[in-house]
Amino acid sequence: MGNTVKRLAVLGSTGSIGQQTLEVVRALSHRFQVVGLAAGKNIDLLAKQINEFKPRFVYYQDKKAPARLADAEYELLSLEDIASHPQVDIVVIATSGKSGLTPTLAAVKAGKNVALANKESLVMAGEIITNEAKLNAAQILPVDSEHSAIWQCLIGETQPAAQLVLTASGGPFRYYSPAELYNVTARQALRHPSWQMGRKVTIDSATLMNKGLEIIEAHWLFDIPIDNIRVLIHPQSIIHSMVEFIDGSIKAQLSHPDMRLPIQYALSYPERLPNPQLPRLDWNNIKNLTFEQPDFDTFPCLKLAIEAGKKGETYPAVLCAADEIVVELFLSQRIKFTDIARLVEQILEEHEAIAHPTLEEIIAADVWAREKVMQLTSGDNR
Amino acid sequence: MGNTVKRLAVLGSTGSIGQQTLEVVRALSHRFQVVGLAAGKNIDLLAKQINEFKPRFVYYQDKKAPARLADAEYELLSLEDIASHPQVDIVVIATSGKSGLTPTLAAVKAGKNVALANKESLVMAGEIITNEAKLNAAQILPVDSEHSAIWQCLIGETQPAAQLVLTASGGPFRYYSPAELYNVTARQALRHPSWQMGRKVTIDSATLMNKGLEIIEAHWLFDIPIDNIRVLIHPQSIIHSMVEFIDGSIKAQLSHPDMRLPIQYALSYPERLPNPQLPRLDWNNIKNLTFEQPDFDTFPCLKLAIEAGKKGETYPAVLCAADEIVVELFLSQRIKFTDIARLVEQILEEHEAIAHPTLEEIIAADVWAREKVMQLTSGDNR
Repeated sequence: MGNTVKRLAVLGSTGSIGQQTLEVVRALSHRFQVVGLAAGKNIDLLAKQINEFKPRFVYYQDKKAPARLADAEYELLSLEDIASHPQVDIVVIATSGKSGLTPTLAAVKAGKNVALANKESLVMAGEIITNEAKLNAAQILPVDSEHSAIWQCLIGETQPAAQLVLTASGGPFRYYSPAELYNVTARQALRHPSWQMGRKVTIDSATLMNKGLEIIEAHWLFDIPIDNIRVLIHPQSIIHSMVEFIDGSIKAQLSHPDMRLPIQYALSYPERLPNPQLPRLDWNNIKNLTFEQPDFDTFPCLKLAIEAGKKGETYPAVLCAADEIVVELFLSQRIKFTDIARLVEQILEEHEAIAHPTLEEIIAADVWAREKVMQLTSGDNR
Repeated sequence: MGNTVKRLAVLGSTGSIGQQTLEVVRALSHRFQVVGLAAGKNIDLLAKQINEFKPRFVYYQDKKAPARLADAEYELLSLEDIASHPQVDIVVIATSGKSGLTPTLAAVKAGKNVALANKESLVMAGEIITNEAKLNAAQILPVDSEHSAIWQCLIGETQPAAQLVLTASGGPFRYYSPAELYNVTARQALRHPSWQMGRKVTIDSATLMNKGLEIIEAHWLFDIPIDNIRVLIHPQSIIHSMVEFIDGSIKAQLSHPDMRLPIQYALSYPERLPNPQLPRLDWNNIKNLTFEQPDFDTFPCLKLAIEAGKKGETYPAVLCAADEIVVELFLSQRIKFTDIARLVEQILEEHEAIAHPTLEEIIAADVWAREKVMQLTSGDNR
């Protein structure tokens, strides 16, 4: 197996997954080296990261970046150029929303292994990305805890899964009535019971949209029909997902809920590495793992995502785009929690989809959906 | 992968595992053929099995077998000759107690793959059997549900396990006081809450001796120190065991508790085969999986087995032999339930062990332990 050092580009390094990726690198610096860093607007944190990790390639979105970034010895490249650079072994796509799409595609086209934390890329353009990955022998290494669990359970198996069971914590509003949900604030929704995550994905977890996006992501990652993927509410977030095989045997992956483990596994695969910073499950304290069926009526986003995933075409791209904007509107208190599903549904209904879309058609659908949300909510400053 | 038919010899075909093995063959007759059958004294059932499966080789222990067995067209061979016969692909060792030892050894010496349900073989002679298996490129395919679970979780992993977590139902007397345990009858002990098994293993499950033997078995099967194997009480018997890896990730295998699944997996490995007769887990009905620490004080057999396993030498053989006789005495109502641990402990204490024993020395230790039990209990007809 050797002790080669893998060279990483971390796109979205100042976000939650990006920062946790750098924590893993810090703990296992004899095995991983950061050669690329890319961030959006958090220039202060990026500057600190550049100072610590000394990357060769840097990207930042903020065009008026302060002068102090200019001193350092690195090359300013585009996201796509970093993602496909010959000196990069693994590209960590930790950006949020649709900004992960073109760098992911650039990476797989260049035959790079991609540690993919950005689910929107596969949801929007799963067919294109997985085809390009196959053509160029690029591996997509899942970083989401659920997909990492499924991947770990499938390793060494000679046949595909019969069924995937995606577990979901159920979010903070598991037992809320529709009236209670209507009055939920952004602050309440940002308090997730088991996972430390970014703002967008935390809201998506509260609506269960996140689980719906994960179903579509799993469909593409593991080449399995959406009808063979089910969701199971498991509030303790100990079992991260399960795979059922054709003989009825089920494998599950468990751990303390900590994103650093699936991040590390994507980076170390096929090896596993000891990391004393990762907390262990303590069976002296685990008395009870519970399971419930998801409530599709109270959390319509889950149903909307499954339907969009089954229909395919440009529906999933529209789902993603609409959700991204609608969640922003909720976070800025311009719409109610229950408006999230209502608006996404309305936009999906109005969409005229295109089968087997090109990248351009996907991006056009995305733009259409974003504009549509703004139209629908422009007079709507509650 | 092809659709080759594997030729099986089922030793112990009239016992619980033997009969369930034949059920699997019946359901998957396009993939498995029975070429050898061997039984102890249940000649009536063996005759039916011979009639149905038309094996080429037969063994039975009862020397005065009825004439009707003579008609059939098969060859009478010893257990060892069946286990090592060139026309056999997989030997299923489903005999109970020490009778599995020499056929298992004969099979691995002949380079056969062995589907091993008899844990006593590995407990008594793990060092010899695993060495011979390595020398002759024979695979030992675990059939016990716990070891099958661990095996399935280890498949495809490039590194050994950090820890094994053997789950245990806890048996029917989980919350009994010492006084209640003293008065337990054989009838009560034979009523296992989750598994359909033979009489000996059902009593061993009630004392937790079975779990102790499984620890020693796992130690040999997976080449892991006994200190890195723990027991977790899991009354629902849904998670059959777990493996923790060096990064803290845990994999578990789950199914409806039905021995036909691990039997089938041992036979079909590395493939999995659909079998409509195997019940599936229904996540609509599973609300709760619970876990407890084992109670070593109330169930001293577990502690005795772990200690014997750690000491090694001829201690595990003595443990097995003493337990086998003591359980018979309990089933025939000659001793109390709590005498089982007391007698096994006394015999282990009196044993003068031999390091790295030969097969002859193991058998001598076994004989010594059996005689010792009879001595200790001869005046003891309560």
